[in-house]
Amino acid sequence: MEEGILKKIIRQRETKIILLVIDGLGGLPNPDKTELEAANTPNLDSLSKISSCGLSEPLGPGLTPGSGPAHISLFGYDPFKYQIGRGVLEALGIDLVLTKEDLASRGNFATLNKEGKVIDRRAGRISTEKNREICSILSENLKEVDGVKILIKTVKEHRVVVLFNGENLSQDISENDPQREGIQPLSINPLSPEAKFTSEIVNKFIQRVNEILKDKKPANTILLRGFSKKPQIPTFKERYLLSSAAIATYPMYKGLARLVGMEILHTGDTIEEEIKTLKRNYSNYDFFYLHIKKTDSFGEDGNFKDKVKVIEEVDRFIPQILDLKPDVLVVTGDHSTPSLLKGHSWHPNPFLLYSKYCQPDGLKSFSEKECRKGNLGIFLAREAMSLILANGLRLTKFGA
Amino acid sequence: MEEGILKKIIRQRETKIILLVIDGLGGLPNPDKTELEAANTPNLDSLSKISSCGLSEPLGPGLTPGSGPAHISLFGYDPFKYQIGRGVLEALGIDLVLTKEDLASRGNFATLNKEGKVIDRRAGRISTEKNREICSILSENLKEVDGVKILIKTVKEHRVVVLFNGENLSQDISENDPQREGIQPLSINPLSPEAKFTSEIVNKFIQRVNEILKDKKPANTILLRGFSKKPQIPTFKERYLLSSAAIATYPMYKGLARLVGMEILHTGDTIEEEIKTLKRNYSNYDFFYLHIKKTDSFGEDGNFKDKVKVIEEVDRFIPQILDLKPDVLVVTGDHSTPSLLKGHSWHPNPFLLYSKYCQPDGLKSFSEKECRKGNLGIFLAREAMSLILANGLRLTKFGA
Repeated sequence: MEEGILKKIIRQRETKIILLVIDGLGGLPNPDKTELEAANTPNLDSLSKISSCGLSEPLGPGLTPGSGPAHISLFGYDPFKYQIGRGVLEALGIDLVLTKEDLASRGNFATLNKEGKVIDRRAGRISTEKNREICSILSENLKEVDGVKILIKTVKEHRVVVLFNGENLSQDISENDPQREGIQPLSINPLSPEAKFTSEIVNKFIQRVNEILKDKKPANTILLRGFSKKPQIPTFKERYLLSSAAIATYPMYKGLARLVGMEILHTGDTIEEEIKTLKRNYSNYDFFYLHIKKTDSFGEDGNFKDKVKVIEEVDRFIPQILDLKPDVLVVTGDHSTPSLLKGHSWHPNPFLLYSKYCQPDGLKSFSEKECRKGNLGIFLAREAMSLILANGLRLTKFGA
Repeated sequence: MEEGILKKIIRQRETKIILLVIDGLGGLPNPDKTELEAANTPNLDSLSKISSCGLSEPLGPGLTPGSGPAHISLFGYDPFKYQIGRGVLEALGIDLVLTKEDLASRGNFATLNKEGKVIDRRAGRISTEKNREICSILSENLKEVDGVKILIKTVKEHRVVVLFNGENLSQDISENDPQREGIQPLSINPLSPEAKFTSEIVNKFIQRVNEILKDKKPANTILLRGFSKKPQIPTFKERYLLSSAAIATYPMYKGLARLVGMEILHTGDTIEEEIKTLKRNYSNYDFFYLHIKKTDSFGEDGNFKDKVKVIEEVDRFIPQILDLKPDVLVVTGDHSTPSLLKGHSWHPNPFLLYSKYCQPDGLKSFSEKECRKGNLGIFLAREAMSLILANGLRLTKFGA
């Protein structure tokens, strides 16, 4: 929805909204049923009878989104306007608070041989513990480069985030990660004239890391990619007047939620723990973004059966969610991840919206095919927030 | 799809794509079934069960396209941005290669009486042979006008193409064809200040033609219309990384295909010959645009029965097309031509997309009404190429 229009019609209400995102939910017949069709989902099926359903497109026909644009779109923002780099996502995911002077990047600790060639892009997938040790050594010895402050933080195993903090840093630089082994890391080059300073700083940084780690094994260098700055994106509070909270098990999704100003709730690794977190915090926020990761992971592995199982597990928690009596409950995916394709796809997402004021479709079940018959039709995911807010009676009429 | 986005996600793959355009396919019940519903199409019906279907709109609700914008849209370009004049289309259709210094126009040889009034806008539909003779006389005697080079080429019967080649020519001029008989040809006027030079050149050209042909019968003048320059349109190779070929029997469609950089394959006049051409060239290109003309011609004549017969003929060739095992096969129209309306119409096109990765709709048959139930919904024809490329696995994901 256009910013100016939204400003005119948005209003505060006491209604509660739950957006349940089952990552990579949509699928393809493999061989004759999709994952969602194959799953035994009595609760979602019942719910689909009294809900408005449809199919949401993350970006438009034929376009396959990464998790970033898929979520930005589902959160109601233009995913082409608000593009989010991998460095930023990763940084947000480990609780780093970014300012506009931060340039974020994803890093791998890696192994160089004596000729300076990368022989392991992941340094033997060192333990997270080991990673922390190295980060601590680097942090002590490498606090700044020519006045640009450096922050190095462990993510997991061989992965780190590096933040460069200073004035006039640009994200328009190339990466040093060669993306394959047996060759030397690349030199980082400016991709626009104003990025020259930044590329020099980052090259010097890498040189310093190599000096400090030169006698270590197996992690003796760092490969950086996904250089990016945080986009200036209006928060849920600013844009929708919603106090919002995110419940997610994976860092990246927490990062995405933080980017739009959601509070990140502490939770465990299981769906059960996520539901407990929802219940415990239910009185404290207007809007809950609840993210289920494993459907996508199994889809990407081409593991049809386990994707089905996760969907069934989510289904078992639907009654507990309904017991909270949310004014609006949406169940959808951020994008499709058919196990047939072993990756994200362009197919639209099954979308279910339950509220007192939806037009119930009376569908037979919650599936890609049934949702096609729903009264929401095929629509852009970035319009979903308007539907959600409307059903939460949080939009007044436009014009007199 | 936006150019910049496409550039980021397009990739080369070894997949084969066939776009079968049945010109003017869509229709209206006349009296109770549309042409497509009345046709016996067992092969298209079977195919629709395992395909994704929908309805594509050439320009948007209520807008009826000419063949130019209908094709430009189906080829994935903005038909409002890339407007193609009739002169350009006609010129491309007779194998003329246009540069940005060419101003093209369609011409009719016509008959003037002694008072200089048009008494036959088509000069008795003179033979193509006769047309060639006149063009040869004109070409010898009229090579340039004030430094602007002239090329006059026979199309068919009374129709010619005239190219004006020079610097600073403008398409913003009026036409001299009065569009009816019994009055004098019109004077050509500039429609913008910078077109004054062009209008003078064209008026002088017509005066010279009249002088040269003054003793000829019945063709003693030329009526010009459709003044236009070639739009600067990115080719299929540039935009989609596709090597593409067109199989069409009518010049205009070859011209449209050439405009987007397709190779024009030599073929015969029948559908059978077009299919043979497809088979013969199948290994040489990634993308085939296969155009069936006669559905539109019979629709324009209000000939329901023969339009049905052409659809049935196409249907009989579907198994041969499927035998080629294309990765993506689309069957659709460029626009509707209901015989009830005897002309192009605004009704959306039945659209069928078959690929290993489509979501099969399980429709009962291939028809306007059944396609309405398909999971592609109603979409803009210019989005079709995104769907086609996605199903050919030629688009990577957008964003991380």
